[in-house]
Amino acid sequence: MAITFYYGSGSPFSWKVWLALEHKQLPYELKVLSLQQGEQKKPEYLSINPRGKVPALIDDGCAIWDSAAIVEYLEERYPERPLLPRDLHQRAIARRVVAESNQYLYSAVRRLLEQTLLRTDGGGDGAEIALALKGLQRELSYYENALHGDYFAGPLSLADFTLYPMLALIKRLHDKQPQHGAGMLLGPRFAAFMQRIEQLPYFAQTFPPHWKA
Amino acid sequence: MAITFYYGSGSPFSWKVWLALEHKQLPYELKVLSLQQGEQKKPEYLSINPRGKVPALIDDGCAIWDSAAIVEYLEERYPERPLLPRDLHQRAIARRVVAESNQYLYSAVRRLLEQTLLRTDGGGDGAEIALALKGLQRELSYYENALHGDYFAGPLSLADFTLYPMLALIKRLHDKQPQHGAGMLLGPRFAAFMQRIEQLPYFAQTFPPHWKA
Repeated sequence: MAITFYYGSGSPFSWKVWLALEHKQLPYELKVLSLQQGEQKKPEYLSINPRGKVPALIDDGCAIWDSAAIVEYLEERYPERPLLPRDLHQRAIARRVVAESNQYLYSAVRRLLEQTLLRTDGGGDGAEIALALKGLQRELSYYENALHGDYFAGPLSLADFTLYPMLALIKRLHDKQPQHGAGMLLGPRFAAFMQRIEQLPYFAQTFPPHWKA
Repeated sequence: MAITFYYGSGSPFSWKVWLALEHKQLPYELKVLSLQQGEQKKPEYLSINPRGKVPALIDDGCAIWDSAAIVEYLEERYPERPLLPRDLHQRAIARRVVAESNQYLYSAVRRLLEQTLLRTDGGGDGAEIALALKGLQRELSYYENALHGDYFAGPLSLADFTLYPMLALIKRLHDKQPQHGAGMLLGPRFAAFMQRIEQLPYFAQTFPPHWKA
């Protein structure tokens, strides 16, 4: 039985799982939920994931959600083409990057987006935006200082698949609203890292559908 | 070389790791940091964990932090007396409970504590406290509905060691400031679950030292 993958376009957590599925070359059926229409809060989906959030998976008849739990599950269920390094300390670094970016980096990105891209009233308060940019810069330099090689935990891992979509959100904000200078927060090491991910053979097909328009 | 364990009294994330170390019967050297005195932000500790947060571990000469990464590391490095179920789907549930409680439950608990126990000015705004209680109640019922057996993911696991300290914070708030009724949010299933954890042979020695006073 193939995996069913519930995906929301633009959700960095959904993107991470998509990259993981593609990296492992697993067959899956993609179900795209419209977050704009709130499909993730409808009874049909709540019966799969009562949190009402994307992503979720169904595999072997079981529903699995929370993106960090999903990628760990995929790694154990389908160990080929690993998502974690072999070395125990590198594994700990990969998992730490996942936990920290979910907790701190995503909050910082989200805070900025809520003052900019996610507003329907034209634009947020300048002082709020400046504060959000400053918080994000602090967070980003923590990761940039930790990037010593091509990837965050040695070989390509779930740490990279977690971080990349969050960085891509910043790049997208910059493309849409360059006046905030958010793109300047992504220094040369990040730019090179992002390029590495974007050159993966399966990258293009995981690009958020509604960003292509 | 024994494990060095950097601990902060009252930190639910530190408590989780302490329970995990005791569960696995591992030898460790306990280093208690005073959070009140901000010892986790001092250069000596920042050279171990640049995030300036507890807990952290040093094992085999490597510093590991973020409590979720630490418990996964302990599980792989010292597989005896497991912290994760054997079944793949139960493992996914355990990891999901960890991720969700770190993200949502802890935020809800923290929000309430910031309006109550953590205030030095006597007490927060009544409406804010009511909102925080309501948010916490919603979060708690999600977990209580998911508790079908003795523990959250089948056998005793890192899910339980993650949740228990957060529930204990609610209990402590109730003991100190019963007027908010926070203890009422812990229904009979939670009460029975907490008792199970409190009866573990190693529980008492992990009780936060400054709570004993």
